[in-house]
Order: sequence, then C-alpha cells, then structure tokens
Amino acid sequence: MYSFQNDYNEIAHPRVMQVLNDLVGKRFDGYSTDKYTQQITENIKQRIGRNDADLHFFNGGTITNLTAISHVLRPHQAVIAVDSGHIATHETGAIEATGHKVITVSSGSGKLEPKHIQAILSEHTDEHSVQAKLVYISNSTEIGTVYRKQELQALKAECNKHGLLLFMDGARLASGLMSKESDLTIEDIAQLTDMFYIGGTKIGAFAAEVLVILHPALKSDFRFSIKQKGALQAKGWLLAAQFDALFTDDLFFELGKYVNDKAQQLVSLFEQKGFSFLAPPESNQIFVILPNQLATKLMAHYALRKICEPNDGVSCLRLCTSWSTTQQDVDKFIATFKQLL
Amino acid sequence: MYSFQNDYNEIAHPRVMQVLNDLVGKRFDGYSTDKYTQQITENIKQRIGRNDADLHFFNGGTITNLTAISHVLRPHQAVIAVDSGHIATHETGAIEATGHKVITVSSGSGKLEPKHIQAILSEHTDEHSVQAKLVYISNSTEIGTVYRKQELQALKAECNKHGLLLFMDGARLASGLMSKESDLTIEDIAQLTDMFYIGGTKIGAFAAEVLVILHPALKSDFRFSIKQKGALQAKGWLLAAQFDALFTDDLFFELGKYVNDKAQQLVSLFEQKGFSFLAPPESNQIFVILPNQLATKLMAHYALRKICEPNDGVSCLRLCTSWSTTQQDVDKFIATFKQLL
Amino acid sequence: MYSFQNDYNEIAHPRVMQVLNDLVGKRFDGYSTDKYTQQITENIKQRIGRNDADLHFFNGGTITNLTAISHVLRPHQAVIAVDSGHIATHETGAIEATGHKVITVSSGSGKLEPKHIQAILSEHTDEHSVQAKLVYISNSTEIGTVYRKQELQALKAECNKHGLLLFMDGARLASGLMSKESDLTIEDIAQLTDMFYIGGTKIGAFAAEVLVILHPALKSDFRFSIKQKGALQAKGWLLAAQFDALFTDDLFFELGKYVNDKAQQLVSLFEQKGFSFLAPPESNQIFVILPNQLATKLMAHYALRKICEPNDGVSCLRLCTSWSTTQQDVDKFIATFKQLL
Amino acid sequence: MYSFQNDYNEIAHPRVMQVLNDLVGKRFDGYSTDKYTQQITENIKQRIGRNDADLHFFNGGTITNLTAISHVLRPHQAVIAVDSGHIATHETGAIEATGHKVITVSSGSGKLEPKHIQAILSEHTDEHSVQAKLVYISNSTEIGTVYRKQELQALKAECNKHGLLLFMDGARLASGLMSKESDLTIEDIAQLTDMFYIGGTKIGAFAAEVLVILHPALKSDFRFSIKQKGALQAKGWLLAAQFDALFTDDLFFELGKYVNDKAQQLVSLFEQKGFSFLAPPESNQIFVILPNQLATKLMAHYALRKICEPNDGVSCLRLCTSWSTTQQDVDKFIATFKQLL
Repeated sequence: MYSFQNDYNEIAHPRVMQVLNDLVGKRFDGYSTDKYTQQITENIKQRIGRNDADLHFFNGGTITNLTAISHVLRPHQAVIAVDSGHIATHETGAIEATGHKVITVSSGSGKLEPKHIQAILSEHTDEHSVQAKLVYISNSTEIGTVYRKQELQALKAECNKHGLLLFMDGARLASGLMSKESDLTIEDIAQLTDMFYIGGTKIGAFAAEVLVILHPALKSDFRFSIKQKGALQAKGWLLAAQFDALFTDDLFFELGKYVNDKAQQLVSLFEQKGFSFLAPPESNQIFVILPNQLATKLMAHYALRKICEPNDGVSCLRLCTSWSTTQQDVDKFIATFKQLL
Repeated sequence: MYSFQNDYNEIAHPRVMQVLNDLVGKRFDGYSTDKYTQQITENIKQRIGRNDADLHFFNGGTITNLTAISHVLRPHQAVIAVDSGHIATHETGAIEATGHKVITVSSGSGKLEPKHIQAILSEHTDEHSVQAKLVYISNSTEIGTVYRKQELQALKAECNKHGLLLFMDGARLASGLMSKESDLTIEDIAQLTDMFYIGGTKIGAFAAEVLVILHPALKSDFRFSIKQKGALQAKGWLLAAQFDALFTDDLFFELGKYVNDKAQQLVSLFEQKGFSFLAPPESNQIFVILPNQLATKLMAHYALRKICEPNDGVSCLRLCTSWSTTQQDVDKFIATFKQLL
Repeated sequence: MYSFQNDYNEIAHPRVMQVLNDLVGKRFDGYSTDKYTQQITENIKQRIGRNDADLHFFNGGTITNLTAISHVLRPHQAVIAVDSGHIATHETGAIEATGHKVITVSSGSGKLEPKHIQAILSEHTDEHSVQAKLVYISNSTEIGTVYRKQELQALKAECNKHGLLLFMDGARLASGLMSKESDLTIEDIAQLTDMFYIGGTKIGAFAAEVLVILHPALKSDFRFSIKQKGALQAKGWLLAAQFDALFTDDLFFELGKYVNDKAQQLVSLFEQKGFSFLAPPESNQIFVILPNQLATKLMAHYALRKICEPNDGVSCLRLCTSWSTTQQDVDKFIATFKQLL
Repeated sequence: MYSFQNDYNEIAHPRVMQVLNDLVGKRFDGYSTDKYTQQITENIKQRIGRNDADLHFFNGGTITNLTAISHVLRPHQAVIAVDSGHIATHETGAIEATGHKVITVSSGSGKLEPKHIQAILSEHTDEHSVQAKLVYISNSTEIGTVYRKQELQALKAECNKHGLLLFMDGARLASGLMSKESDLTIEDIAQLTDMFYIGGTKIGAFAAEVLVILHPALKSDFRFSIKQKGALQAKGWLLAAQFDALFTDDLFFELGKYVNDKAQQLVSLFEQKGFSFLAPPESNQIFVILPNQLATKLMAHYALRKICEPNDGVSCLRLCTSWSTTQQDVDKFIATFKQLL
C-alpha cells in the first residue's frame, strides 16, 4: 500500500535513470573536475540567470546544510531559523556539531519574518552572546507553506540592513516554486538569497542536490569544506548527471507541479469534508487535522506520521505526495478515506 | 558610586587575601598535584558529606560549564536548560562550540521542572534529533529564584527515570543555599546531583570555582578535559587556597547570608513602595519592575542593566548585592530611591 | 586515452547497474529501515562470518572514516595512523574537524606495526597529551602494500594489550584481500578488527561503502552519528543494492582479482625493464620509480600523478588499475611505454 | 628541596603581590572593560611600540593559544609548528579540539625555519589536504633555544610570501628576550609577528598572559572568542594588574635576565664537567645529557623530568630556573651535583 509518507520512496524518475544508464562505459575525471559536470553547471547557471554563481553538487540535504553553514560562519557566529526549521529539529544537531548555535524563533507559519530577526538581534548585542550572521529559511517550509516574492524581498532587505546573509534550503524547492500560492521564480531566488540549494533527491533524482553560492565572500575555498565534511564524491559527475535530467526541458519544474497537483486533490478532499490544517497546505506536504479516532483508523491503513495533537481530541497527520505518486494512489486514498469517515 | 550591578567588583574578601598572602615564599608542585590542594579537597569533601567525590578547581564559571558538559556528552547528545539558563544565553555559544546542542524550554520561574523534561523527551525520540542526556540547572537561577528540596528531588527522580544526568551550576550557590526560601543544604545537593560546582568568584574569591563530580561514570580522564580546554592552571594551588579561606569557619555560607540580607533590604524597599518583580526575589539578584520614568532616573544614578520591558510603560531592572556591598551602600541606595519617587 | 589514474572513472559495473535498474518502480521505506537493506545486511554478515556485527551503509570513504572515528572517540582521545594514512593526508583535516588529533608515525611500508604503537604510547603518558585510543590502518595501504595475517594478528594483540581499538579502512579492500601476497580472508578481518569498512566505490559500485562494527561498545547510537554527519541517505536501499550486486556470486572478490591481474601486468613490464618501486607493488596501486625524463614523457601521454622524487633524477609515479580497465588499455600502455624507453 | 623543575612553583613576585594587595577595597567594572585595564593596556602598547595593537588578557598559556589560533583560522585551515611545539605535544589536542590540524615538521633546534614552511606547502597544494594558514613558534622554544633577529625576519618574509600569518607563543618570552644569544627586542617582535603573547605566569605573575594582536584582520570580534572559550574573566582587572607590576620599571625584563643568570651558572657547571646538551642552552630551560647512573642519582635528590634517552647509556634531564630560584638554591645544586659525580 502506498503510504503518502514521503517523496523519496522510489529510486529515480525514468528520465534520471536514462541519463545515468547513458553514462555506462564513459570515463570521467574525478571529484567533479570533469567537463560534463562543468557543462551541467553552466546550464543551471544560465537557467537561474546567474552566470557569476558557484555551484557545488551534494548527495543529500543535511550534508549540504552543514557544509554550507559551517563554511560561512566564524566560530562565534550563529544561524537564525524558525523553530520548525529542519536544521533546528531533524538534523541531530549537525550544525552544533560544527560548533555553531542555531538561534530559533517561534513561527506559526513556518516562515521567518523581519520582525523575528529584529527580536533576535535585540537580544544578541554583545560578546556575551553569539553573533547572528546567517539566516536560514526553507522553501517550501517544513510545514508545507511557501514564501511569496514580497516576503522574500522584505527578508532580504532586513538581512542587508544588519549585515546578515540569507540561505535558502531548497530540499523541496520544486514544489515550493510551483505552488499555486507562489509568485517566486527560481531566478528571483537567485537574486534574493546569498546562497541556496536546489533539491533533487525529493523530486525524482537518485540522490543529488546542488548548492548555489551567490555572495562573492562565500565562494573562496569552498571545495576544502566539501572535502573536509566527507561530501566530495569521487564520481562527482554522477551528481551532475541527475541535474542534467532534471534541468532538461524543465523536468524539475514539471515534477514540482505534478506533486502539487496530487497534493491538491487531497486538500480538496479534506476541505470538502470540513477538516482544517496546521498551516495552509501550499505545497506537496499537507498537515491535516483530524479527529483522533479517524486519524487512528487512517494510520491503520497508511504509514502516516502523527505530528502533534494541536487540541484535545484531534491529531495532526502529515501527508506527502511524490513524483512517483500515481493517480491511482490518490484515488485509492480518497476512496479509503471516505469509507473511514 | 556603588552600582549594585554585580558581585565581582572587588578583588577578594579579606580572609581570601590573607590566605593568598600567607602563601608567599612557599613552593608547590604544579597543575593541582600538590598536597595543599589535596588537603583542601579533602576538607570540602568532608563538608559536603561525599568522600567519594572528585573535585577539580577552575577559575571561572563558563570554562567550568563547558569543560564539564563537553566531557560528559557523546557527540550526538545534548543538554537541557531553561531558556534563561546561563549556558543558553550568556556564554557565547560555548557549549555549541564543543559540538553540542542546548535544548531550551521556556520557564517563567527560571527553574526546570519534570514536566519540561517530559515535553523535551517526547520530541526527541529517534536518531533524527539529538539525544537529551544532561540536565543543566542553576541555583540560584539566573533570575534570582532558588530550588526547594522537594523540587530538586522531583527533578532528580525524573532524570533517573530517563537515564539523564543532573548538573547544577553553582555560580551563586552561596546565595542560593542561604536564601530564606531554601530548605536545601549543600549536603543535599551533593546527594541530589550527578555533578555541581561551587562558585567562589561571586562570593569573595579572587577567581575560583570547584567542580564536584559525584557520578562514577563522569570521573574518568577528567583531567584530560581540563587540560584540553585550557583550564589546567600551572599554579593550581592558588585556586584551592581561595576555597581554603571560603570553607574555613563556613565563610562561604556566612557571605551567602550576608548578600541575601543586603538584597532583602532592597526587596523590602520595593515592596513597601508597591513595586513587583519579574520573579520572586529569593537571593542576591533582584529583578524589580519599575515605571519607565523611574527606571530611567534610577539608571542615571546607578549603572543598572535593563533586562526587559515586561509590559507597556514598565522596565525590569536587575540589582545585585555583593559580599563587598556595605550597609552604607544600601542606605544610600534607599535614600536615593526614595528621593526619585 | 585511459589514464590509469584511478579506480573510479566509470559509473558502475554492469551487474551493479542491473540491480539498480531492477529497483525501478519499487517502493521502500526511508533511511535504511527497509527490508531489502536488512536482507543485504544479513547476506554480508553471513559472508564475513559475523552474525553479531552491525552494518551501516555510506556513500564515500571520507565520510565513513570521519563518522566512525568521531563516534568512537571521547573528546581527549586520538587516533593513530601511519604518516601516509588517508585520514592523515588526504581528507582535509576531516578528523581534526570533529575535534580529534591524528597521531602519525613514519612507516616506509605504509603499514602500521606494534613497535609504532609502543613508541607512541611511550610519549603519551598523562593528561598533558592526547590519549591514544583508536588505531587506523588501511588494506591495501595508500602505497599499495597489503597486510599479512600474522601482521594483523600481531597488531590486534598489541591493541588488546593497551586497550586500543583497531579500525581498518577498506576503501580498496577487494584488491587488498585478493593480492597474491595476502593470506588474509574477509572472515579474518572480521575477527581481527573492531570495526572495518568494505569499500564499494573503487571496485565497481556506483558510490557505496559498508561499515562493519564488531566491538559491542561501538554499536550504541551509531545511527545518531550517521545522521549528524549528514550521511543518512533518504534512499538508503540504493546503497544496499550496490552491495547486493557486489556480494552476489562474490563479484566483489572477482573484481579484486581482476584489478590485481591488470596491475600485475604493469608490474611485470616495469620489472622487466629494470625499474623499482616506492613500496612492493602488491595490489592495484603501483608506485613505480622512473628516470625524470621518462616520467615526463609518460605523463605527456597519461594523466598520472607524480608522488615524489625519492632521489635525484628519478620520479615516483602512481598507476592505478580499475574494474573498468580493459586488456586493450593495458596492452596500449605497454606498447606506449616501450616506445618511450 | 627546591626542584629546578619549573618556573611556576611560587605564588608571585613580591611586586606583583604588592599591586594586587593595593587593589583591596577598590571597585571596578567587569570583564576587562574598566579604566585601569585600559591604562595598563596603553602602557604596554607604548612599551612595545605599537599603539595600533589590540591587547587581551588571559590567565594561562594553553587557553591563550587555543583562543587565538581558533579565532584566526577558517575551518579548513591549519597551523604549522615544529614537532616539539607546545601546541603539538603538551596541550592535549587543544587546537584539534577546536577543529584544526597542527601540521608538524621535525626540527632539531626547536626553531622553525623557512625551509620547513616550503616543505609543508609543497605537500599541501589542493583541497584534499588542509590549507596551511598560520605559523606557530615559541620564543624561547620548548627546548630552550632562542630566535635571532635575522631568523625571525627570514621567517616573517617567508610567511608574507605565502600569505601565512605568524604567531609567537611567549610563555617564556622574558627569558627568551633576555638571552645572551638574543639580539631581539620586544619592539622587534611587535614588528615581526602578526600576533604574539607576553607570558606572565612563568616570570613572576600570579597567573596572567597578554595577547598582542597586530594584524588588523585578526582583531575583529576577538572578545567573542575570549568569552566563548571561557577565558573572559569577570574580574579582568586582576590580570591587567599583574602586568602593571611586570611592566613597571621593566620588572619583566629584569626577571628574564635573572632566570637566565641562574641558568647560566648551571650551564657552566655542566660544561666544566664535560657534559653536553640536547640543544644549546640559551634561556632558563636547560636540557643536559648525563650518564644514566648520574641522572638517576640526581633525580633521587631533585624532582627532575627525564626527557629522553638520546643515546645508549645517557639521559636528557630538563632543569628550569625561576624568578623564585635563590642563589642558595643554585649553590646547593652545584654542591650536590659535584658530590654525585
């Protein structure tokens, strides 16, 4: 039974598999110094409209985050995140393990706002506290919401005002960008952040992400950090190849739209039946609030995760659609859910 | 003008100075391996009723905290603290710099309670999150409150239930223990914690703290950690000597009572005039809430720190009494304050 | 032109590719908790004769090393390695970045011997120095030599004598084990080390290694360390799948023999022509010493790396054969080399 | 019996004690923000001829080293030292604990030379190795030798050539500068290094060192690092006060000359009797080589440390004179030694 539990339960999209299979028998230089990687890099730079960017390929989100963040910060500096931020909750203290505090602020929307930054800076004023230097956001967020262009512009302006750098975790960037609620383009993000990563693993890649470094001061010696953190793949071209597939004919964006469409069908179902959500369901992650009894019955059929009990008698369950979710999977869920009501 | 700003504004209590002066011309082995240090260690162990304890001398609170905590934790483990905890706010990420997350929980009283531990453990259940292992508390707390025996017993029981270790920061232990509200003895603390430190710097020592390790599993190789963190003083006996003075005729406790008595006079003043406090004023730190105008006038005379603005129109100021505070200092403050009203 | 530069210049052995392609359309649980990973794990445990082992899959050597080593050591503890050890030279301080010193000792053979351990322990006697706790070796070594069973037994005995743990880096374990000079079996290694890893990336896998933890004390909470270091792959089964191929019909060992056979042909060539080696050429890495002029000419045809100039007028070049090296590649090299003489 | 074992066996020079006693009853602001500290800072800056320097007080050598070095380096950068360097041998991996490798090079003289730097840089050429950034030297060195002006100039020139920074550990700077063999002044050192510290603890201070930061790029946010490493003393003025004494009427230099004079008497004794040294005895540490039998007899009378056995039948013992060594101590040693011959 398909679980709607995550977006990484199948190996890779057929077009990604095809590109990988096409590499058989070809020989490449090691450690991402090959010409194929260089070509894919150029393609992506052109697509995002930043020929001056530095790109580095990784094979997972946590190692991208920890490598990028620890590269940027000096020992006494810290990163700001919302309390539901992935680096704050589900990376086993990966950032702290590199020596840096994650300063968290409570946010119901999962999004960071200028007022949050101001509040944190007002409490971190001298050498007795860490120095905030980097702002971490995710798009889509960990609770499925997405940033609007104006929100991102306001955040960037606030960062600039205080000499803060802005980093976007794009583990689910495809879904975030293709949200019906989003007016952001990938070109916008390449203008409005100092560093962001484009997540592949959760949108049809085998296991690949690409970090885009935009701020010149962050570029120097970055490959030292990749190697030191154990992220420099010998066969670096394998990572680039996955983005070759994802960025050919905009497959990346097409799949983002696909997962959102599938999610939207579930949202409509829940809305029709009068259920509400922990946060507005704007991407491929849905956090629906159901009566405990119904939640329990549903979890007997689907391996869903209970996130919390927001109020007495109700549970919040997380559903996630994938590039591998079929219309049949959705139809079956809808039928099952209606039966359980 | 005396500031009531802190309890470390004079060199040392006369009896501490006397002991130090008495050392002139005497020769000792280095790195706390001398017999004098051993003797003072024995005295303290006897005083706290734990002959099985290991004692280690330090010259400041932050380095005691970071050495002790990083020694105890494995890489994936974290320490729990209230949000006002010193390690969470005013040690510049010292714990994170050793690789560990400080998990914070909001507490209006500045004290940690069993329910806080339960809440944290319910959110840290698998390898995607850090593993809580150590519980950090301060007595007195950073907002001037003190633990009762029953509270500490309940906390220790909760720790034991979950395999957590309990560490008490005793930077202001003398004041905490001698609080009128406290029914705890130092012997109790030596029974109810796995590790605690007795603060000297803020109660008349030159610069000295002594860490008491009680749990057998925490003792091994501790001197390696002291040396690695840069805390192994060549002239280790100088640290012991300060505790020689503080633990002769219970000077430590006498001074704890003294600072509390001075604080109590200020508390009575504020209460008489109808002002309230951020938290119950139970030790030598007072967090009084005053109308903004009065606070401003008072800060023009005394270099006091504004902690926050708990509500519109009012400010919370921190006052701190010291072993060096004279009755004249207190009288003058009272007179000044009354004039400003 | 094929370079003989490394053993990771093609995507993966056909049988590895086949297994990966067979996964298309199948769904798995995340983070290596799936049943397929469990089954492959059981297969490997049976093959190495240690049903009590814990296995963890990684996607590269450096991250395996840093995760395993930092998991094992307490803050004041260090790892011992020969001066040519990979963690000492070519991992950009990855171990130091986790807080630990790599104590190195000079070894002409690239192999660590009991006398080396004794020498290091005699200089690390108290808390003013780090405490040696883990011994790191590679098989084959970084200069192409391999351990004999007696050597490994002697090393393990020395480790046991001093309470040291023994860790073998098996990035090129297949070649090491299948060396004509080796009397070691993988079962021996699983008996004589506390922890070792079986390298896949350099012997036909896409990108995969598997760490085998044997000593019970090293097992607890290991998945926390994997996640914290960014090595917990969402699609964990992809890593297991590569070992499914490698450990079916002993492909792993077959390929080890294959690369060694190819290397042996080059060794014979060099020996026939009267050239010597930096160290005995016992595996798929050859460090041949050639006159500078000849070396330069050879490097004009092949992208080989000059390791050092061991004496005036001569250069040491490194050649490496791969599972993807064809007989034609070898023949062409031999012909080219003879022409250049 | 006086041991000649170290230079930190008595509390402090009488003039240091006098300054400390004079502070009784005076009140100061905390954390080195007071005016007295500022005044002493100005005095030292004037004495060393660098009004543009930043000065920071510490209470021990290891914590000065680890704070300074970790502040300067980015995560992938390393510090170069000779193999006998204090940070490489006797600080329990303190630098590695902050994440950085100490690259060591063998040096018989205990001094680092330009050729050493060249050798290291030739082996650290790309992102697979750490990046050398800082050069650490000690004056006097750990084996009692001292740098000449020309040597330091050559080293600084080599550093400049490669963009390396130069840091001098001055734990025994007074003795080093006042060596008969030294033509260096403290003004020279303030011109020829990017950062150095003036050691007080081993030349009559209670426990105090002062770090002098000269290179502008190293100055920013340094107090954050001091606080984070646990080195920011609440009563910072106590540290400054000790340098008030040491830098009044050049007591620091006078005591440097004193310890060297005492050492010279021992050197003359050993030379007269035909004994040699591990390295030229140029400061207050002497490493004399004696027949094993004589060494054993001497160690029965004096708690001296055997450093090594440089050849069969002989032992190298370390003797150290102190500001507290009396002429009587020296005379007695000479008499004892002659008796044992």
